[in-house]
Amino acid sequence: MIKAAILGATGYAGAELMRLLSYHPDAEIVYPASHSYAGKKFSDIYPGMRGVCDMILREDDIAKAAEEADVIFLSLPAGLASSLVTPEILSKAVVIDLGADFRLHDKSVYESWYKTEHHSPQLLGEAVYGLPEIHRDSIKGKRLIANPGCYTTCSIMTLYPLVKSNLIKTDGIIIDAKSGTSGAGRSEKLGSLFCEVNESIKAYGVTTHRHTPEIEQELSAAADKDIVLQFTPHLVPMNRGILAVCYARIENGVTEDDVSAAYSIYENEPFVRILDTLPETRFVKGTNLVDISWRLDKRTGNIIALGAIDNLVKGAAGQAVQNMNIAFGLPETEGLVTGAGCPF
Amino acid sequence: MIKAAILGATGYAGAELMRLLSYHPDAEIVYPASHSYAGKKFSDIYPGMRGVCDMILREDDIAKAAEEADVIFLSLPAGLASSLVTPEILSKAVVIDLGADFRLHDKSVYESWYKTEHHSPQLLGEAVYGLPEIHRDSIKGKRLIANPGCYTTCSIMTLYPLVKSNLIKTDGIIIDAKSGTSGAGRSEKLGSLFCEVNESIKAYGVTTHRHTPEIEQELSAAADKDIVLQFTPHLVPMNRGILAVCYARIENGVTEDDVSAAYSIYENEPFVRILDTLPETRFVKGTNLVDISWRLDKRTGNIIALGAIDNLVKGAAGQAVQNMNIAFGLPETEGLVTGAGCPF
Amino acid sequence: MIKAAILGATGYAGAELMRLLSYHPDAEIVYPASHSYAGKKFSDIYPGMRGVCDMILREDDIAKAAEEADVIFLSLPAGLASSLVTPEILSKAVVIDLGADFRLHDKSVYESWYKTEHHSPQLLGEAVYGLPEIHRDSIKGKRLIANPGCYTTCSIMTLYPLVKSNLIKTDGIIIDAKSGTSGAGRSEKLGSLFCEVNESIKAYGVTTHRHTPEIEQELSAAADKDIVLQFTPHLVPMNRGILAVCYARIENGVTEDDVSAAYSIYENEPFVRILDTLPETRFVKGTNLVDISWRLDKRTGNIIALGAIDNLVKGAAGQAVQNMNIAFGLPETEGLVTGAGCPF
Amino acid sequence: MIKAAILGATGYAGAELMRLLSYHPDAEIVYPASHSYAGKKFSDIYPGMRGVCDMILREDDIAKAAEEADVIFLSLPAGLASSLVTPEILSKAVVIDLGADFRLHDKSVYESWYKTEHHSPQLLGEAVYGLPEIHRDSIKGKRLIANPGCYTTCSIMTLYPLVKSNLIKTDGIIIDAKSGTSGAGRSEKLGSLFCEVNESIKAYGVTTHRHTPEIEQELSAAADKDIVLQFTPHLVPMNRGILAVCYARIENGVTEDDVSAAYSIYENEPFVRILDTLPETRFVKGTNLVDISWRLDKRTGNIIALGAIDNLVKGAAGQAVQNMNIAFGLPETEGLVTGAGCPF
Repeated sequence: MIKAAILGATGYAGAELMRLLSYHPDAEIVYPASHSYAGKKFSDIYPGMRGVCDMILREDDIAKAAEEADVIFLSLPAGLASSLVTPEILSKAVVIDLGADFRLHDKSVYESWYKTEHHSPQLLGEAVYGLPEIHRDSIKGKRLIANPGCYTTCSIMTLYPLVKSNLIKTDGIIIDAKSGTSGAGRSEKLGSLFCEVNESIKAYGVTTHRHTPEIEQELSAAADKDIVLQFTPHLVPMNRGILAVCYARIENGVTEDDVSAAYSIYENEPFVRILDTLPETRFVKGTNLVDISWRLDKRTGNIIALGAIDNLVKGAAGQAVQNMNIAFGLPETEGLVTGAGCPF
Repeated sequence: MIKAAILGATGYAGAELMRLLSYHPDAEIVYPASHSYAGKKFSDIYPGMRGVCDMILREDDIAKAAEEADVIFLSLPAGLASSLVTPEILSKAVVIDLGADFRLHDKSVYESWYKTEHHSPQLLGEAVYGLPEIHRDSIKGKRLIANPGCYTTCSIMTLYPLVKSNLIKTDGIIIDAKSGTSGAGRSEKLGSLFCEVNESIKAYGVTTHRHTPEIEQELSAAADKDIVLQFTPHLVPMNRGILAVCYARIENGVTEDDVSAAYSIYENEPFVRILDTLPETRFVKGTNLVDISWRLDKRTGNIIALGAIDNLVKGAAGQAVQNMNIAFGLPETEGLVTGAGCPF
Repeated sequence: MIKAAILGATGYAGAELMRLLSYHPDAEIVYPASHSYAGKKFSDIYPGMRGVCDMILREDDIAKAAEEADVIFLSLPAGLASSLVTPEILSKAVVIDLGADFRLHDKSVYESWYKTEHHSPQLLGEAVYGLPEIHRDSIKGKRLIANPGCYTTCSIMTLYPLVKSNLIKTDGIIIDAKSGTSGAGRSEKLGSLFCEVNESIKAYGVTTHRHTPEIEQELSAAADKDIVLQFTPHLVPMNRGILAVCYARIENGVTEDDVSAAYSIYENEPFVRILDTLPETRFVKGTNLVDISWRLDKRTGNIIALGAIDNLVKGAAGQAVQNMNIAFGLPETEGLVTGAGCPF
Repeated sequence: MIKAAILGATGYAGAELMRLLSYHPDAEIVYPASHSYAGKKFSDIYPGMRGVCDMILREDDIAKAAEEADVIFLSLPAGLASSLVTPEILSKAVVIDLGADFRLHDKSVYESWYKTEHHSPQLLGEAVYGLPEIHRDSIKGKRLIANPGCYTTCSIMTLYPLVKSNLIKTDGIIIDAKSGTSGAGRSEKLGSLFCEVNESIKAYGVTTHRHTPEIEQELSAAADKDIVLQFTPHLVPMNRGILAVCYARIENGVTEDDVSAAYSIYENEPFVRILDTLPETRFVKGTNLVDISWRLDKRTGNIIALGAIDNLVKGAAGQAVQNMNIAFGLPETEGLVTGAGCPF
């Protein structure tokens, strides 16, 4: 039984992780922690979990967590994880960070997009970018796993086969992504109020969203050259889900068969479904799946590749469990769902 | 391994049952059937289930189903089940009917509220009303189980302890219930269009809703006298969930301790949670739970008892699985969820 | 041209009032004020109004407002209005208070339900309860108008004819009301976040909601005896709208014709529609209308009367304009809408 | 007083037009018609309009309409308008067609995208593309006005200044557009059910949507060369609103001042607002406005231009009224709203 600590257990991603681990056959939560709600029952904050997880929340103390747990999940504001994780912590527990602090290999890129100092750049080399479908082998045996962002997971997985197989021009890529409101977190902001979100759609962070360099890093590695791309996120009046619609110009002579062959890289992946029909976020809601589809447009010379995930599962907590499963040698799908009910 | 047939597998309740059974450790679907989609893959109709349940849908043929299955679930329009079920079918398979045909013991009550003929009144005596928390012992060994309605499950379970313990006056009970839109089913009706439901709330079926006699039948049995009550359903712009708010006048001298004692009848029930806080449908979404709370109002002499369920789970497919578990001697919670994530 | 001041112009009710007055042919806003946003443009807070109302917001200073305005609208937290309004202010301007401070005639009832001191009980006698359909004649010429609450407007108007005509028993009245989320206001509360409201319904304030004594006061006056009733509000995942479903036992011998006759009291009211069909909040959205319908249930001996309004219009800002129109001798419907688009 | 006929008065666009004309100071509806509901009251189909427009709906008979009306609005399925409009009709009434039949100048382009025959190609030369901000002068005096599509209005108006001023490369333009569900119309389709739309987002019509050639036609004319572009629409779980996010590569040396200057073409337009902040559909809901904003991204060399409209107003009925106002020499904003309440 893997003993798990969760720091930041009462944010939406942390709470989803609490839920998934509560049902995981080979893991148990031993140290659930929350800065805001320490001392309270988890199920008083999330009454849906009453009877399933009634543990008392503890302080966000990583040292204590490392004494009790085999794996520590961090779901904390940007900049905090990098000030908490140390070699000593890593010697005691595997750390899976759901935040952004260890995702970017280059400290200066991090500091430029996040406008904050990185507190432990010496650890960047030890971290692995925890996108299993691309870096599975590197995840095994690592002590520090940077769990990818929600938009980034969806965008990278949708575009990776096209880039890896050199089917598209690497300049001019555009990603137009749409997210449910849980992506904005549980903090009490005016812009997250029901009446400010409902019955509307908006883009935000145009040209400046922090997930941009993360996508560029991973696709550049796949292309073996620097990729600069356009990423635009949107807020959608729904709880969960991300749809990433990716536009790129195809290289000359690329055929539909070429594209199919490129995506066959995923054919044994338990969490990837390549569809003929177009993805809809409801069909992955509550699951760790990525649904992907694409259309070649001979008229324009573009390929449109579309991916859908649940931002709190494959985009956060589910992928963190997937990474834990890999790191600890468990079956990768354990404790994770691969089919969605409807309507949900 | 219990072999299961589902007739009406592509309605919302039927599809939810397909999903639950797909993950059930001791059951397997052998005969999924759909009048509208026979010959097609279930996962083409419900793409969320691709990779999990890709079975071909068959004709709604109960005789064939009975040849192959140990249990037949019926999720059909009112009046159809009573024309399909026969002693011969029942000799071959347990039938769990998610529809209304076998819920009312009295044929004339059925015909008066449903405005349709009952085709097999001789079977009414063999059917058990499948609300496990009240009729568990009678369910065991029965061949014909009438799975309760969604509104009725929520309403009966909320009021039953008060009636059973004689704490309330049995005249003047009012149930004001609210349901998500999946309760209206998947048929292509104007009133179910997104733009006709969204951003609005309405009552419907005022004084005439068919779930009324079902609630009256069960509460009358508990009270051992005839109860006539007011039931008003509402349509809420959300996918799932029922909230039943029940009003009754308390008998003289009834205290909060009396009420607590009455509800303690549920204390070992795996699917019932008695709350101090008020129930919200989101906290039972996707689960087989009933969340119940109550308030005594000394000012008015009323008790307000509130119950919440997921209409497609405890209100339909989940309760059907619970009944199957009981009928076949499995642990009652098998394949069913007792904690809800949030937001979902 | 009536010169209008609005204190609390950036809450949802205040902003709706700003919108209505911006289009009013005989009124102009001269003093828009906001405690939180003083110094900013109204249209920077409400960008939908850019180009229509770009005025700079001023301090919530009632004395200054009284110097410049003929009418002062107050849309402030409970307890604040009663500390601001003075005879001197009233000598300079008509005050229409959208809050609760002057609605209840009895100071002790106010203090008991609102748990706060009333700062100007001596003015209670000068205030009129501004429900035009009941108190129109008293509103004319008054200097202090207490604009009714949203739930109360809907509940009182639905039940008033039945009480006034002695058609129902006055004990045992139950009002089960449902409101859109704008009723919770624009403050940054966890419970108002999109992900906490969406896909759920809940009751709140059961037995304790502050609108209860307001409804009781008005219906008691109509009945000429004390009425104690049960009021239960709910939060619905939609922006706007209130539906009040009212249950009462009819007096012996009451017929449908009696009920029709009772409601004919409204037949010349420009903002009341008596329907054969059941009301839905979408059909009054954005309007100052009250849609009312009812059903007599001979089976139970109850009448179910249903009313629907837009909580921000007839339940707040629209009714405030209606009161202004009456107080200043304008046509009562001026600047107000009596038809709803759909879908909206 | 302009006498107006509306054929197709009970679809969402037709009904919105009924609403707008009901309040228009210089127009009156004389011939409201509906194929499905002829003989019924308009307000029985749209109860929100009870008391405002209770006219009896007539048959969709354009000849009769032309006898009684000065202007005929058509809101009909594709292909029907082109079989109804004749020179004789046009000699009697101005026709404003909300459908697609007269929008494309080239019959073969129409037939290729719409997969249906065009029945009156000889009239294409007499039709004007009724986008007032671009073709105002041509609209005056025309008898046949092709009211633009919803996506197209939003997309063209957002991109037109950039194209007209030669600031962007005309190859590689991408429009990623998102629409509320009323855009799918009022027909009883599975895909429009509440439970199929709610809590999800999807793209549809990728590479094949019929609004593509309409956008290309207008932008090609502005550029004076052929433009081929990528257009992708999405379905959003909300009633109303379109957001078009347009991506293009800027020409060398283009500055923010150049872009501002290009958009100043709209500075006297009553229905266009150029914003510093990003547009949100809620801020134009219920109005005839187009909100536009843009961002230059030096990192990528792209401009992202964003436009928002209400699909039923500026995207359909409101623009039709605007066209009527122009055609009949009325003030262009008459009967149209230029400010949005919030939340709505």
